[in-house]
Amino acid sequence: MHAVSAEGLLSRAAIASRIGLTRAAVSTLVDDLIRWKLLEELGPERPGRVGRPGSALAVSGRGPAGIGAEVGVDHLAVCAVDLRGEVRARAVRRVANRGRSPEAVVKELAALVRRVAGEAEPEGLWSAGLAIAVPGLVARDARTVVRAPNLDWRDADLGALLHVAVPVTVDNEANFGALAELWLGGADGPRDFLHVSAEIGIGAALIVDGQLLCGSRGFAGELGHVPVRPDGPRCPCGGRGCLEQYAGEEAVLRAAGLEPGEDRVGLLAHCTETGDERVRRALYDAGTALGIALTGAVNLLDPAAVVLGGSLARLSPWLLPSLTRELGDRTAGPACPVSVSRLGPEGPLLGAAHSVVRAVLDDPATMAERA
Amino acid sequence: MHAVSAEGLLSRAAIASRIGLTRAAVSTLVDDLIRWKLLEELGPERPGRVGRPGSALAVSGRGPAGIGAEVGVDHLAVCAVDLRGEVRARAVRRVANRGRSPEAVVKELAALVRRVAGEAEPEGLWSAGLAIAVPGLVARDARTVVRAPNLDWRDADLGALLHVAVPVTVDNEANFGALAELWLGGADGPRDFLHVSAEIGIGAALIVDGQLLCGSRGFAGELGHVPVRPDGPRCPCGGRGCLEQYAGEEAVLRAAGLEPGEDRVGLLAHCTETGDERVRRALYDAGTALGIALTGAVNLLDPAAVVLGGSLARLSPWLLPSLTRELGDRTAGPACPVSVSRLGPEGPLLGAAHSVVRAVLDDPATMAERA
Repeated sequence: MHAVSAEGLLSRAAIASRIGLTRAAVSTLVDDLIRWKLLEELGPERPGRVGRPGSALAVSGRGPAGIGAEVGVDHLAVCAVDLRGEVRARAVRRVANRGRSPEAVVKELAALVRRVAGEAEPEGLWSAGLAIAVPGLVARDARTVVRAPNLDWRDADLGALLHVAVPVTVDNEANFGALAELWLGGADGPRDFLHVSAEIGIGAALIVDGQLLCGSRGFAGELGHVPVRPDGPRCPCGGRGCLEQYAGEEAVLRAAGLEPGEDRVGLLAHCTETGDERVRRALYDAGTALGIALTGAVNLLDPAAVVLGGSLARLSPWLLPSLTRELGDRTAGPACPVSVSRLGPEGPLLGAAHSVVRAVLDDPATMAERA
Repeated sequence: MHAVSAEGLLSRAAIASRIGLTRAAVSTLVDDLIRWKLLEELGPERPGRVGRPGSALAVSGRGPAGIGAEVGVDHLAVCAVDLRGEVRARAVRRVANRGRSPEAVVKELAALVRRVAGEAEPEGLWSAGLAIAVPGLVARDARTVVRAPNLDWRDADLGALLHVAVPVTVDNEANFGALAELWLGGADGPRDFLHVSAEIGIGAALIVDGQLLCGSRGFAGELGHVPVRPDGPRCPCGGRGCLEQYAGEEAVLRAAGLEPGEDRVGLLAHCTETGDERVRRALYDAGTALGIALTGAVNLLDPAAVVLGGSLARLSPWLLPSLTRELGDRTAGPACPVSVSRLGPEGPLLGAAHSVVRAVLDDPATMAERA
């Protein structure tokens, strides 16, 4: 599956040579994969090759799909991604989730999941699994949201609340965002990087040699609670002067003198574009705070790159000047390069859906019963 | 080798059942290992067991030994550790290395290595390899010291300077200290922890699931350069208000009004024991700074524990109150537990020697030619 997925089209003979099995063994496996709707046969390869033409195989655009979902502070989103990596259905609902019970949010999310699955079904797609990105700390059981301060949730077992017929996994949105960057960044994309993202809070995730660093309880990456000014304002986390108090969306809106409304990032971007000096100043100061916290993170973790994702990607033109200046000034040698994710706010949702797709590619036999 | 090493004494039959090979295959391997002086036969097992008594095998106390070395700011140390993990020879020389050329230091270190190897030789031990702990950043080639500000070294290729007949590896002292904690902490010791140590500078190393996190260039763990007060004093690293400016040995001595002499840690410990309030205050403030920097590190990395090693272990009675208070106050939930290494300043030297021993246990066939 990975060989065909990486190269697009391959004959049985080409697969055999790629993975070092006999042509006969590959044919047996391929027959299974076609029956399970994971591969499809596209007819004879283009002529001009020596020998009997082989039939080209491709990853199926029908069959299993990964369902990704995102619980945001003021939105819910769901998408279906096929095994080729294409988004085939998508639904977003604006809704204020802060302070709502996990039960109510999960009920609405399940309705959205059914809608997306219903849209995908006529195209021959069925759900291989559901992965949910949340703005909070998730236990290593991959279902319990231990703490999501911006939703006001504590110890919410989403796995138990969700009544769906497919396997469910839950993870922090920053983790899924980083994995999306890793998986969709292309073959020459970074494999050792710190991915920083924001949606009200600020999260980060470290990818080391292509693997996510989870932490002993699954709580690694809380960049938003790195102390920037130790005597600074109190933070709900228990700390003082945490990064979120300077560069979180609400802190920036407050500093900019703006009311927190629905499309906060859009509002900030609009104001800077129209030359609002107070907003520009607020984002410049947020970039400074990000640069200080990232200096600590880079010194501790030595990533090959820092990638700004989520809403930070959209605001990067106004954050980057002070952020990179701070990082450069505080580093004796060459500073760690900072880049901006092309996925932006889509990262966590895509990462969630792709995590399901990758699980199918890793272990296609799990789909045997479903086909 | 690992099976016998873990259990002390094992018969061929017991090894076969532990590792899932046939008795015959194990006997062939054991014969090789005895010939290479990696295992030794201790005669028949104690009676009282059913069946023909097997001969008990033990890891050899003669044969290959790991040579560990440490380049400190004001000392050089070398030790030889046998495959059983026992220190069999040891030499320390007090010498001011700051500002000395790498060539001069390496020459003196090589003489010390020869002395220790010479002491071990009559006991039937020979060097399987040499591992050197240095207070600086080491490239991933495991031989080049890229930067050691407290020695005033830059891009020093110790591998090229050292003319010894055995394989040489170089690593940061904090890394070897953390590995010693992992390897010598016993079977129920932590496998996910942040190890913090100090000798003039402050370094840290993260062990994740029993593996050292190296960073993309091998530079991870620079806790000493996490910004604690972003507008604080300039640091040679290029930053401002780095942890080392508050909790490094020299900063603490300065705050305590003491002259930096030879046994700085001993001096600090002595002064606090005799009730010097200014020194106690300086250590209390250093503990506060450590607590702030560790809050950031714990939020980013989510280790199961923080372990204080090196000179921090000795000074821990005066550092811990403010350090743990700071960490506790800045954490909403239960704070990450902080413990003190029993190895203390011996950690890096022992970690270096044991890294060679473990390489032999991992791949004993490399010793075939040497026996």
